Amino acid sequence: MIRTFNIAPWHIETNQWDPENKRIQESITSLGNENLGMRGFYEEGYSGDTLEGIYLGGVWYPDKTRVGWWKNGYPKYFGKVINSVNFMKLLITVNGEQLDLNHQVPQDFSLDLDMQKAILTRSFKVEIGGVKLKFIFERFVSAALKELVGQRLTIKNLSDSKADIEVISAIDADVYNEDSNYGEQFWDVLAKSNQQNEVKMLAKTKENDFGTERFTVGFDTTIKTDMDYVGDVENDQSIGQKYHIALQPATTSIMEKRTIFVSSRDFGTVDEINERMQELTHTIKTQSFEQLLEQHVQEWEQRWQKSDIEINGDAEAQQGIRFNLFQLFSTYYGNDARLNIGPKGFTGEKYGGATYWDTEAFAVPVYLGVSESKVVRNLLKYRYNQLDGAFVNAREQGLKGALYPMVTFNGIECHNEWEITFEEIHRNGDIAFAIYNYTRYTGDQSYVLNEGAEVLTEIARFWADRVHFSAENGQYMIAGVTGPDEYQNNVDNNWYTNLLARWTLRYTLEILDQIEEDVAKKVNVSSAERQHWQEIIDNMYLPEDSKRGIFVENDGFLNKDLKPVSSLPKEQLPLNQNWSWDKILRSPYIKQGDVLQGIWDFIDDFSMEEKQRNFDFYEPLTVHESSLSAAIHSVLAADLHKEAQAVEMYERTARLDLDNYNNDTADGLHITSMTGGWLAIVQGFAGMRVRNDQLHYAPFLPKNWTSYRFRQQFRGRVIEVSVDKSATNLKLISGSPLSVDLNGKKVELS
Amino acid sequence: MIRTFNIAPWHIETNQWDPENKRIQESITSLGNENLGMRGFYEEGYSGDTLEGIYLGGVWYPDKTRVGWWKNGYPKYFGKVINSVNFMKLLITVNGEQLDLNHQVPQDFSLDLDMQKAILTRSFKVEIGGVKLKFIFERFVSAALKELVGQRLTIKNLSDSKADIEVISAIDADVYNEDSNYGEQFWDVLAKSNQQNEVKMLAKTKENDFGTERFTVGFDTTIKTDMDYVGDVENDQSIGQKYHIALQPATTSIMEKRTIFVSSRDFGTVDEINERMQELTHTIKTQSFEQLLEQHVQEWEQRWQKSDIEINGDAEAQQGIRFNLFQLFSTYYGNDARLNIGPKGFTGEKYGGATYWDTEAFAVPVYLGVSESKVVRNLLKYRYNQLDGAFVNAREQGLKGALYPMVTFNGIECHNEWEITFEEIHRNGDIAFAIYNYTRYTGDQSYVLNEGAEVLTEIARFWADRVHFSAENGQYMIAGVTGPDEYQNNVDNNWYTNLLARWTLRYTLEILDQIEEDVAKKVNVSSAERQHWQEIIDNMYLPEDSKRGIFVENDGFLNKDLKPVSSLPKEQLPLNQNWSWDKILRSPYIKQGDVLQGIWDFIDDFSMEEKQRNFDFYEPLTVHESSLSAAIHSVLAADLHKEAQAVEMYERTARLDLDNYNNDTADGLHITSMTGGWLAIVQGFAGMRVRNDQLHYAPFLPKNWTSYRFRQQFRGRVIEVSVDKSATNLKLISGSPLSVDLNGKKVELS
Repeated sequence: MIRTFNIAPWHIETNQWDPENKRIQESITSLGNENLGMRGFYEEGYSGDTLEGIYLGGVWYPDKTRVGWWKNGYPKYFGKVINSVNFMKLLITVNGEQLDLNHQVPQDFSLDLDMQKAILTRSFKVEIGGVKLKFIFERFVSAALKELVGQRLTIKNLSDSKADIEVISAIDADVYNEDSNYGEQFWDVLAKSNQQNEVKMLAKTKENDFGTERFTVGFDTTIKTDMDYVGDVENDQSIGQKYHIALQPATTSIMEKRTIFVSSRDFGTVDEINERMQELTHTIKTQSFEQLLEQHVQEWEQRWQKSDIEINGDAEAQQGIRFNLFQLFSTYYGNDARLNIGPKGFTGEKYGGATYWDTEAFAVPVYLGVSESKVVRNLLKYRYNQLDGAFVNAREQGLKGALYPMVTFNGIECHNEWEITFEEIHRNGDIAFAIYNYTRYTGDQSYVLNEGAEVLTEIARFWADRVHFSAENGQYMIAGVTGPDEYQNNVDNNWYTNLLARWTLRYTLEILDQIEEDVAKKVNVSSAERQHWQEIIDNMYLPEDSKRGIFVENDGFLNKDLKPVSSLPKEQLPLNQNWSWDKILRSPYIKQGDVLQGIWDFIDDFSMEEKQRNFDFYEPLTVHESSLSAAIHSVLAADLHKEAQAVEMYERTARLDLDNYNNDTADGLHITSMTGGWLAIVQGFAGMRVRNDQLHYAPFLPKNWTSYRFRQQFRGRVIEVSVDKSATNLKLISGSPLSVDLNGKKVELS
Repeated sequence: MIRTFNIAPWHIETNQWDPENKRIQESITSLGNENLGMRGFYEEGYSGDTLEGIYLGGVWYPDKTRVGWWKNGYPKYFGKVINSVNFMKLLITVNGEQLDLNHQVPQDFSLDLDMQKAILTRSFKVEIGGVKLKFIFERFVSAALKELVGQRLTIKNLSDSKADIEVISAIDADVYNEDSNYGEQFWDVLAKSNQQNEVKMLAKTKENDFGTERFTVGFDTTIKTDMDYVGDVENDQSIGQKYHIALQPATTSIMEKRTIFVSSRDFGTVDEINERMQELTHTIKTQSFEQLLEQHVQEWEQRWQKSDIEINGDAEAQQGIRFNLFQLFSTYYGNDARLNIGPKGFTGEKYGGATYWDTEAFAVPVYLGVSESKVVRNLLKYRYNQLDGAFVNAREQGLKGALYPMVTFNGIECHNEWEITFEEIHRNGDIAFAIYNYTRYTGDQSYVLNEGAEVLTEIARFWADRVHFSAENGQYMIAGVTGPDEYQNNVDNNWYTNLLARWTLRYTLEILDQIEEDVAKKVNVSSAERQHWQEIIDNMYLPEDSKRGIFVENDGFLNKDLKPVSSLPKEQLPLNQNWSWDKILRSPYIKQGDVLQGIWDFIDDFSMEEKQRNFDFYEPLTVHESSLSAAIHSVLAADLHKEAQAVEMYERTARLDLDNYNNDTADGLHITSMTGGWLAIVQGFAGMRVRNDQLHYAPFLPKNWTSYRFRQQFRGRVIEVSVDKSATNLKLISGSPLSVDLNGKKVELS
């Protein structure tokens, strides 16, 4: 655990200059607006260790799979987010000396991410070029105008003598990805131009061997400043403008930089991109920096009004949950059904930008609660729009129906590790389950009875083809899978996978009974096909152990050496950093809940005794080395009235990155795990469930907290739930009256 | 099946010019002498599809593993054979036109590999540059002088007018590997020189990131010809000499080219390499081409005298078995304990050059029979010398003792597919078994009681650490392995692996009882350690199915959809070319015998009924998509008196490449599978076994054969076994008298 920021309710701030943990701080101070985002790297450059990462939503590159042992069904490339053209640059020299905090030592250093307003501010004093100056860097990625990034640089001369200051504002395509596969660059510069406080660059992702989309991106930067324009600074891959000021003692100079980003994702041709950039640049030119910032802040204010969680008595918990929501909203706010929630969002390269099952399994339940239903509906549409890709993925494996990818940008599987790609097929069930989850929560049947029915049918077809009948025991089985617990690879009859497969078939049959004729025609399920599905449902094998009264994670699991995690020497944890993959695979240690993930999905379908026995068996074997694990365990622990454990698990998830729990925050934030804090509080501590179109609560108050309060969206309403030592208070903030269930009693809210 | 050569007892020959199958022909006409070897590509160059492969024994390069999903215990590089500097070049122009059979059409084409003499001859007539010429290319890779490759070019003018002929003899380092990972070159040219009919080049494998050995190689080419020396032809990466002749009608010109290859594997410094090349070049200069060739032919004559197999009544079988032995001897003849038998020998890039378990499992039993015992002893020493590497491999997985690599050049694992690297650990048992096999066959205890005891002890230590005790069923188990059948990955309790692990522990304990004190001190096995091993031996779990009376390949195998291979549509075979890897892994189809491999290893330890039941259950599920599979099945079928099936399997193995059975001979030959023909005939048809220091035979004669005869080495003797329709004849060709067992009766040979 490394904590690099102070505890504060709305701020991530520090006054410590901490170059050793700079990458961690860069990750944590990331900003984003769904359309693009960036790490909190320094605009003036830094010659020490840094990851200058800017990422553009939906812009990626297919990296050729370079393995000598190609087998049929392996994806041909590994899809990766690429580091954007860097348009943030503000290179500064003072009396000829380059500003670079790797060389000068800053004083009165302050780094502050204001989560309420989504503004990052960095300030420091520094002796440079024989003078002492104060620098303030501010930036925001506009939530109001998705194409806009604003920066403001303030320089104050604290010396007795004047300072000759030069600033180069540049757009630079000479960027690399750090990821080991790449020694290459991904941008071809198409055009650059420079005029009157404005520079532009158009670049295109380089050609690839797979015929996947190439992306054209355009950046248009305008500068407002009291400095003098000196001239342009250009080379093959970059374009910039140099400004100068002779800054007198005790005076201040300000430079505002506004960058517009437009891409071929929205506009097909270079002309259209240019036109749109011009249009937007014109619009923002007529407004002050403060105005642009204000619109951005207002948008964030609205977000917080609908979703804020207040915790009293535990300042760390308070900061943690706000940081979670802040980063989630920075990554995705449901405005564009072509985008999704990458496990690292816009905060790093690893897994960056691509879509995983995390979305359906973890993010959907949270967004249902914190945002309007259209947000999740867009997430569902994302998969519907990629159905063709899912057909391709299934066909590649020689299977019928739709196999949604484990990792994707465009619907086609783009991860090339076989044990992930075609073994972690539970994702197909999770994607089906999200449709059910959305429908249950929102009451909106229109999706499931139309697009949803198609998706469900094709997923059901996949499952029906993927199972096999085992003559040996007269049941249907699913061989060769990896469940949510990736520490057991290529197993047979993963209970979770089999459960979801059976459930999908059953739910699909239910939905098919309700669809209109035109939809029925489209999905074209014959009665023989239905009958076959029913036969599978009735005879699906789900491994259980009658002796222990538990569900068995997979065949053979109980043969392992079942010593609890607590028996392992502390220095061997985390296992994935200390054990060989061989040793991990053979061990009984569970990366993230697997049987327990299934119990969480269908939490109302199991008896307390069943839940208890499985929790007591599996939790002690679980190492929680997936960041997605703790939240699920927190909810289940709460459900089982293991309140202390529920809180402990909450703490692990809510401050995962703020406290660098897994020792990998430097790589980027665990964006999809940011859902964990909300799940733990709302589903866990408050016991929120939706049963038969009604909200249910069964809250408890964590021991160290004095109270907590959250707001929740539900079917056009905003409901506020306040829990303190004495009582639970439910309040309807907006929307029509409804009745909810509190600890088994009906409460009318109006 | 594609057959590109005629049937002949001692020749691989064709008169068909067959550019479509050129790569297959190149593979089949490969030559080698353990120290180096090459494919039968054309020295004059060919602009059509060709793989110009020359490979140098033990010379390789570590290719960086480029995957994004690195896990602890994965090898850091993939070791690969690299294509040598090409010293074979003889570029020819006639009246200004380049000879290139992709442009001219050859007439009276002949390609002939003489297996008895190990000479490759190619001749054709061609109209070129307005004249008609006959070309004859001959080459040999000397079995008598390991550093020597000889070439002879004969050109006859068949026209009425003179022909202006230019020949450039060159050494060229501008070579590439074809393998997908490489766009790079592997040679840095260190020096080139050119003088008086002689050119030299020194080159070094380029730097690598892993600190593995870099190899310096030197080539020295001398030319003898009636042509005139014109001048040198040189660029950065190549050096050559140009010769010219105005060839008059009906006259003939001859060019002899002798290349000496010396490398840093034998001499440490460049000076020493140069000196040795000079020395050797001097020696060969004093001898005629015919003399050099004669020494080579004599060496091959001796090899054949000890090992030839004669088959009457089946010309295809005859050719097949000789081709098998020819290619085996070309790859390895036991002169250098630092070398081994690559699965493709010197005939292709895939798996080329590296050492696999094939050596111990398949090659050792054959070399025991066809060569002197020192040959196999050198193969055993190879592993002893690499014991340090095996310690590293085990430690990388967090395990004790020695884990021999699945693929290696230097003892360190150099394959980077996890399901191979740390799952196919049965190899460790096979390597132990080879020690036993050698000792049983040769009667020589000196290895096993010294170096062998160390190897066995360290392998035993590995097994003792790799097993785990399953409290659930009170037995020791081995989880997470892949057996010989690579179509079932990451399984638990592979019967074969568990059997070999138990056997190794037991055999090691037996040997430890016999070693001298100094060796005992060295291996340092405590009585507690012994006791632990005994405990594992006594409680090892070996999966069996009492209902069917069979051993079970691995846990869960019987749950599969157990339809026989014969039920699959023909066009789906071979599975590895038609099914996804996913589908293959989930299927019950067996790539190569697995349980049956174990039964073959310990063929005297099982009852006929056990063997019968297992064969009848597993063989119908086996697709034999490993070239190593058929031979084992042939021996077992013979053992079970399924003679027709034994012969069918023999045919599949003995002519695998000659008939391109697996549709991949173009990539190179299946060198280690060349053992199959011998195993099928000697262990199968002749029923040869060694029991209690005595040879046993129980021969049958395949229906279509009139007779067969083979020679076998046994403890300093050569024995000839002749089987015809009426009787089996045993003859002692050399060595002291001995008694053998023929069909249960003692026969004295003298």
